[in-house]
Amino acid sequence: MSIVDEFLQANNAYAAHFQKGDLPLPPARKVAVLACMDARLDPARILGLEEGDAHIIRNAGGRAADALRSLVISEQLLGTNTIVILHHTDCGMLTFTDDTIHEKVKKELSADADHIAFLPFKDLEQSVRDDIAFLRSSPLIPQSIEIRGFIYDVRTGKLQAVE
Amino acid sequence: MSIVDEFLQANNAYAAHFQKGDLPLPPARKVAVLACMDARLDPARILGLEEGDAHIIRNAGGRAADALRSLVISEQLLGTNTIVILHHTDCGMLTFTDDTIHEKVKKELSADADHIAFLPFKDLEQSVRDDIAFLRSSPLIPQSIEIRGFIYDVRTGKLQAVE
Repeated sequence: MSIVDEFLQANNAYAAHFQKGDLPLPPARKVAVLACMDARLDPARILGLEEGDAHIIRNAGGRAADALRSLVISEQLLGTNTIVILHHTDCGMLTFTDDTIHEKVKKELSADADHIAFLPFKDLEQSVRDDIAFLRSSPLIPQSIEIRGFIYDVRTGKLQAVE
Repeated sequence: MSIVDEFLQANNAYAAHFQKGDLPLPPARKVAVLACMDARLDPARILGLEEGDAHIIRNAGGRAADALRSLVISEQLLGTNTIVILHHTDCGMLTFTDDTIHEKVKKELSADADHIAFLPFKDLEQSVRDDIAFLRSSPLIPQSIEIRGFIYDVRTGKLQAVE
């Protein structure tokens, strides 16, 4: 069975017991979570979120610069007032540099990705602080928005606040 | 209790029963899911994914142009070979235009977001086809990558393939 067929089979099981068909579009808990795409993170399970509770934005590293479009839509059109940034231990973004991936793309794909900043980082706590600072200083994120940052430990399942 | 305190309390419960502390970094099922940030979607539950299975990239609309950085990292550094695009019914991206949000940002924030393409769409199925076409034509996504698109129905919990 192909992976897509497996997904469709799993979806049949989900839909068979689905009872959340009347949820409103705006997030009930007025939160936007910005998390890394890492396979080991499940923000809903980690934070106790149910369907309808929160926007969840995810990208490589959970980087804010790559989430600004989504955050403006979340806040200005759908009423969220809190951003929770979720980075994690053992993140792939700690293992390479822009030079590494620019060269790899040239070698593997005979293509040029030099125009893309891949946003890796060297220090996990600092990456959270940098993303909070990026949003705090953006004219597109009002000062009334609460912004909090956390590191998730993939070994223990625990969150640690970044101050 | 603040929303952040609620998250920390929920995380204590999650971590207390956590038994997945030795998962490897690369996704076990070699898939990157690209889904909308909408609060009503839980890609893991919809597709039957467990921690460790797949990268999950999410943004407003589940748009490919905003996910290219993450997809290149997913494929070139972490070995995924399939992209599953997941848009959904009743999407907020169907309800506004770039002009709408550019004007709202000026009015509400006294700021200028005219340089941001917010990537709204008028036709749901076409938005999936457009994102598949965008990735298929990108020199940064090799032809060997399988790309499939789906629409999730927020009323029924069911997936529909977009051909």
